[in-house]
Amino acid sequence: MALAVHLSSSPLLTSKADEKYANVKWDELGFALVPTDYMYVAKCKQGESFSKGEIVPYGDFLISPCAGILNYGQGLFEGLKAYRTEDGRITLFRPDQNAIRMQTGADRTCMTPPSLDQFVEAVMQTVLANNKWVPPPGKGALYIRPLLIGTGAVLGVASAPEYTFLIYTSPVGNYHKASSGLNLIVDHKHRRAHSGGTGGVKSCTNYSPVVKSLIEAKSSGFSDVLFLDAATGKNIEEVSTCNIFILKGNIVSTPPTSGTILPGITRKSISELARDIGYQVQERDVSVDELLEAEEVFCTGTAMVVKAVETVTFHDKKIKYKTGEKALSTKLHLILTNIQMGVVEDKKGWMVVVE
Amino acid sequence: MALAVHLSSSPLLTSKADEKYANVKWDELGFALVPTDYMYVAKCKQGESFSKGEIVPYGDFLISPCAGILNYGQGLFEGLKAYRTEDGRITLFRPDQNAIRMQTGADRTCMTPPSLDQFVEAVMQTVLANNKWVPPPGKGALYIRPLLIGTGAVLGVASAPEYTFLIYTSPVGNYHKASSGLNLIVDHKHRRAHSGGTGGVKSCTNYSPVVKSLIEAKSSGFSDVLFLDAATGKNIEEVSTCNIFILKGNIVSTPPTSGTILPGITRKSISELARDIGYQVQERDVSVDELLEAEEVFCTGTAMVVKAVETVTFHDKKIKYKTGEKALSTKLHLILTNIQMGVVEDKKGWMVVVE
Ligand SMILES: Cc1ncc(COP(=O)(O)O)c(C=O)c1O
Ligand SMILES: Cc1ncc(COP(=O)(O)O)c(C=O)c1O
Repeated sequence: MALAVHLSSSPLLTSKADEKYANVKWDELGFALVPTDYMYVAKCKQGESFSKGEIVPYGDFLISPCAGILNYGQGLFEGLKAYRTEDGRITLFRPDQNAIRMQTGADRTCMTPPSLDQFVEAVMQTVLANNKWVPPPGKGALYIRPLLIGTGAVLGVASAPEYTFLIYTSPVGNYHKASSGLNLIVDHKHRRAHSGGTGGVKSCTNYSPVVKSLIEAKSSGFSDVLFLDAATGKNIEEVSTCNIFILKGNIVSTPPTSGTILPGITRKSISELARDIGYQVQERDVSVDELLEAEEVFCTGTAMVVKAVETVTFHDKKIKYKTGEKALSTKLHLILTNIQMGVVEDKKGWMVVVE
Repeated sequence: MALAVHLSSSPLLTSKADEKYANVKWDELGFALVPTDYMYVAKCKQGESFSKGEIVPYGDFLISPCAGILNYGQGLFEGLKAYRTEDGRITLFRPDQNAIRMQTGADRTCMTPPSLDQFVEAVMQTVLANNKWVPPPGKGALYIRPLLIGTGAVLGVASAPEYTFLIYTSPVGNYHKASSGLNLIVDHKHRRAHSGGTGGVKSCTNYSPVVKSLIEAKSSGFSDVLFLDAATGKNIEEVSTCNIFILKGNIVSTPPTSGTILPGITRKSISELARDIGYQVQERDVSVDELLEAEEVFCTGTAMVVKAVETVTFHDKKIKYKTGEKALSTKLHLILTNIQMGVVEDKKGWMVVVE
């Protein structure tokens, strides 16, 4: 593999690259694109199954102006991370779960998905090809972004005649800049998803509609937006790119995955870990009233793993929650990142070595 | 302009092309892509305004795998038609209305839109460049598809750093194959839009989510799907790509544009024309019960102009409505297409000559 030195494309690059690492300023990583060397591309015609797929140089690719993704938003994405452990392995966290979620999404959006094996295999190939871009232990992770998009030309509203499965990567550090907890604002104007819509799958169509709320929230100093359910406006659903949990006493509660929130893989894993350490975990409707009376609130997602919520603003109320060393969120974050970073033994069988 | 003869790209092409017309089998046009010679492309960086734009050969273009449209569905589209009149002019129907709608959509999806003038000017340039593809009078129209998409690379959920305004065209005939009326089925499982979402703008995110319903409906022999409101499931909203009207006595009713349905330009024009010929037009919630008791039901949209609904299936009920020569929908279709085709004088000032 050539020792490509990317300089113009990102302010996070230095002139230092060696046999093991790309020329990245590892200490300055945030959550922005740092292009890597290679991407994976496979194609599939409607009614057929996916071709084998290829690792090709990362870069712009050709698309029809009439593609389903450009005109009708026919697209899904996934997000997972590759970690470099202290003992020098590169590992993935539950990639089969992302593969399964892409299949559910493909069914909802009428596309043919790659098989579970092809998905995981393709993720591994992409990581291996870009292994120099996996940050050193403790400096972050290689974020992996699989896309399944309708690239065939389609004029009337319908499924595209061809789909592309593409994977690109970027080394990342923290998703949210705040090192303390998140400051969320409850959105009263916009809803994220409705029953019978696509809120339960990772469809691209769930994301651009929340950008306006996000921009407004950030310009008022908030970290992110907490959405309420479209049906009643009384229950909490999730944050723009993460799930939410509340803690009261010994009970951890999180909204159920009944079609309007994304079934997060971190959410599922954290629920299991919380049970392991003696908490009762309930998946059920969580009202705003309960949120306001919780002791702790935290978010989960691939990007931030577990992140404490410091405050929630609801109309003119601003509620402060427990954060810091003694918080459950801190404990759960540590338990999970220790598994992910290979610091403790993975008794769950969650980690997969890339080789 | 070169006399390009496209043969491989569409089964609707013949080997006959001349100075005036492209090599299209004009009598066989449906609503599928027949690629034309040129497209329009302009770019805009976030915070700046659109560059002048260029007419370039129609074809695939380069896009970043990390583009906002591919990952987060940041895209809007428009749809309008160019007509060739009997006296040899090429005209557009209310293109300023599409320009305005793109501006509203751009505000909702956090993109910079082209100015109204640039939009209309760009549409004209694109039509002129493809003038041989405007069907002969009575054979159809040149469908024009403007796109506004986030093409800049963006890794975390946010507005893309660059937008592309692109226009391509395709000659089209009828949208729905049925020459009689539409057979609609009321969807009980999926909703199209929720209040506080993007249903009121022409965002790509409203379309892939309805494809599953459409496929199911078509496989059961229906022409299209009628969606109910997400809030109550009691009122009718619209069909996958058109607005809906009901007629009872002297009153024509259509759901209001309060954020969950697209404010159709045909809808607005037909409302005006119906008033002109003595009907009372009400924009208000229309319940399923009223739909079932209507005398006539019809749909409006750029693709089909006005189309009678022959039947609506609601659970196990199948209601038949008046269609045919004496139906109001037939009358309104004729009045509007006569204006669009230049058969009668355009007293409204709706038609714009392309020159
Ligand atoms: C809307 C939304 N909710 C929740 C999550 C968390 O899911 P996961 O834990 O699988 O990353 C994501 C993705 O990261 C998301 O986009
Ligand atoms: C969902 C939807 N409703 C209604 C319409 C009709 O709008 P117009 O009359 O402007 O074409 C369209 C577009 O054609 C549409 O996509």
